[in-house]
Amino acid sequence: RIAEMAKLTQLIDNEVFRAYATYATIVLLKMMLMSSITAYFRIRRKAFANPEDIPPGKGENAKKYLRTDTDVERVRRNHLNDLENIVPFFGIGLLYALSGPELSTALLHFRIFAGARILHTIAYLTPLPQPGRGLSWAVGYVVTISMAYKVLKTGLYL
Amino acid sequence: RIAEMAKLTQLIDNEVFRAYATYATIVLLKMMLMSSITAYFRIRRKAFANPEDIPPGKGENAKKYLRTDTDVERVRRNHLNDLENIVPFFGIGLLYALSGPELSTALLHFRIFAGARILHTIAYLTPLPQPGRGLSWAVGYVVTISMAYKVLKTGLYL
Amino acid sequence: RIAEMAKLTQLIDNEVFRAYATYATIVLLKMMLMSSITAYFRIRRKAFANPEDIPPGKGENAKKYLRTDTDVERVRRNHLNDLENIVPFFGIGLLYALSGPELSTALLHFRIFAGARILHTIAYLTPLPQPGRGLSWAVGYVVTISMAYKVLKTGLYL
Repeated sequence: RIAEMAKLTQLIDNEVFRAYATYATIVLLKMMLMSSITAYFRIRRKAFANPEDIPPGKGENAKKYLRTDTDVERVRRNHLNDLENIVPFFGIGLLYALSGPELSTALLHFRIFAGARILHTIAYLTPLPQPGRGLSWAVGYVVTISMAYKVLKTGLYL
Repeated sequence: RIAEMAKLTQLIDNEVFRAYATYATIVLLKMMLMSSITAYFRIRRKAFANPEDIPPGKGENAKKYLRTDTDVERVRRNHLNDLENIVPFFGIGLLYALSGPELSTALLHFRIFAGARILHTIAYLTPLPQPGRGLSWAVGYVVTISMAYKVLKTGLYL
Repeated sequence: RIAEMAKLTQLIDNEVFRAYATYATIVLLKMMLMSSITAYFRIRRKAFANPEDIPPGKGENAKKYLRTDTDVERVRRNHLNDLENIVPFFGIGLLYALSGPELSTALLHFRIFAGARILHTIAYLTPLPQPGRGLSWAVGYVVTISMAYKVLKTGLYL
């Protein structure tokens, strides 16, 4: 048991893997933040998706709270965009971290991706004029493809 | 080759990792179940998203099957909420399982999360009055943040 | 440090894990491709979700570009379906690859899943008449459940 534990702990002791774990956790937490922002706007704008979510005591007016709101929909599009981009980063990044990259190269990938996704959210929610959001999306996209290339170059087995 | 295999098998032999693998698989299967429930309601309520999905021989009436249905949309919102919450659990939970937590603490996190997400689905599809669904969502959310805290405390490498 | 690196490299040297890494990367890249296809159709069909995405200089006409388009929505449904199915494959597949399956059995699972998801996208975007898309979805679904069964049989720890 102790020997096994030691072995697992070594994985988290490896610097590339620790860097991956840190940045993957940061971007996943950032993605989770979108749920809270959606809830905040739904309550503030009184725009709910489910009848049971409408605060009680609204009587005849209750139905009009069952509606979409442009700000709520904006946060939701941002959240979905996170899912579409952070999921590939998490998956390909994990395999990349296990493919033996240089620590400095790996850190470069992880830091640029995390920075780009944070900028993407700022650009989406402000909103900033384009191409701010488009560029930050593209940077994260290219970083993930670069990691995928390294994974396939190192371990291709079809 | 055999030595390598042994090494990998040790990962699945580690109790914390086995517990993670079990609960992660359970919540991912639960999430997959939403696809089948959506298909069931689409067929039963005759509410399809694609023209090619409408059963043939409907003639002039075919177009009216291309519609949204409140129950179908409810299942779809539940499914998307699963993606938004089970993806972070899977990712952060994997890193947490590799960060050397106590078995009993890890089991507590995994069991509470899985239970909360199963209750969340029951609350969403019944539907139960609030705050049933809201609380079960919040419990899963807090469990994931607790695991993220452990990962960052153990392995922070910026 | 070098000993640790060697250990990690052994993971990517394991044939089952390399096969998993290859096919997981391929299906994640395929999923990422949907973002580009969505962007292509949004620009070509002039159907945008955010006011700031509309090309400048449209004057009074700008508002009419803020609309949904059937082809854009089709690609988006395909993308969401990928998330719903490729995420469980990635997660359960990772645990499956670590559960010590036979190389030939593992390759069979990974190849069928990847093939089914590529066919699913072709069937969705062409679109091909049903049950083409339905069958390719079901094949990927069953492959993932088969891997989940192996994970739970090998490592169940409740």
